[in-house]
Amino acid sequence: MTAFQYPNGKKRPITSSTGSLAPKKASISYGNRGMTLEEDLNKSNDYYLKNDIAIIHKKPTPVQIVHVEYPKRSAAVIKEAYFKLASTTDYNGIYKGRYIDFEAKETKNKTSFPLRNFHEHQIHHMDAVTAHGGLAFVILRFSTTDEHYLVDSQLVSTYWKDQENNRKSIPKNSIEKEGIRIKTGISPRIHYLQAVDALYFS
Amino acid sequence: MTAFQYPNGKKRPITSSTGSLAPKKASISYGNRGMTLEEDLNKSNDYYLKNDIAIIHKKPTPVQIVHVEYPKRSAAVIKEAYFKLASTTDYNGIYKGRYIDFEAKETKNKTSFPLRNFHEHQIHHMDAVTAHGGLAFVILRFSTTDEHYLVDSQLVSTYWKDQENNRKSIPKNSIEKEGIRIKTGISPRIHYLQAVDALYFS
Repeated sequence: MTAFQYPNGKKRPITSSTGSLAPKKASISYGNRGMTLEEDLNKSNDYYLKNDIAIIHKKPTPVQIVHVEYPKRSAAVIKEAYFKLASTTDYNGIYKGRYIDFEAKETKNKTSFPLRNFHEHQIHHMDAVTAHGGLAFVILRFSTTDEHYLVDSQLVSTYWKDQENNRKSIPKNSIEKEGIRIKTGISPRIHYLQAVDALYFS
Repeated sequence: MTAFQYPNGKKRPITSSTGSLAPKKASISYGNRGMTLEEDLNKSNDYYLKNDIAIIHKKPTPVQIVHVEYPKRSAAVIKEAYFKLASTTDYNGIYKGRYIDFEAKETKNKTSFPLRNFHEHQIHHMDAVTAHGGLAFVILRFSTTDEHYLVDSQLVSTYWKDQENNRKSIPKNSIEKEGIRIKTGISPRIHYLQAVDALYFS
């Protein structure tokens, strides 16, 4: 949960799911009734948990706490803290007995997914998870068309390692060819475990 | 990482590993050269990661952020935030292709481990992980004698469900009988994956 309610009722996400450290203002995805990718995935994970399908959680936003006050007869208040870069991906858990690990990102681009959405350490982490027998993937939202794809982390890793010599993004036709289009709906909003089934369990 | 450096050089843990929400003052475990259980486990996990043995991380401390300021030309500052109760256990990851999930707690008691160290939702979470084929366990430190045990979560769950009628703690002889004593040393400090091997892979 990284969204909070201001007293004036406005919602504002604390971290963007594009991986940048600095919080951004809430952007409204018109294709998706104003829900951020993170909110949609949290709802989907709640659905999977309640229906005993999988146990997958978003990790809390890492925060470096510098100063805490302890008022008498009320909760401790953090008075100074900073956003930290996460050392892993945002989501992990268990599905069908397998370790699941993924990152979710979105772009307004229409024909490719920019690699700058990822961090070096996330690529390393996903490579290591794959090597240890886990399922590591990314969920990519093309927000302009409201399309979602699930792609194995090795595709991202391959383009990542080649970007010095080559293009700085993954072409959409490569994502369409190697990945699985994710169905979206009401509940679960983003039914990504169907895509996991298609990619890894079929 | 929930410990931070005050300007005066004193270290203070932000959350206790005893599961309470309110931060406590740093307690020095004389049996263990002043390292908290969490610090020891983080070091052990670093060792496992660097040696490509397992990928296990502590989840960041969950924080409810209420107010953030965005000064020009410097990092966003969280000016008001509160500690939240975690919805899962503190640690998870992958080892030998299996999903690993655990909670670490310590007590000064000598003959039993008080169940008040756990929360209802943690017991449910570990039960669910077990049902989905993951390895869910707890690491218990008896700080007075500096002994560490790894115990399957089902032992905790069994005592938890019985506590209305019965005792409010797990007797140490039950932990010794059902669990595995963890060897401690320099690197890794708490070699709990040896105990995982003995309990689940032998």
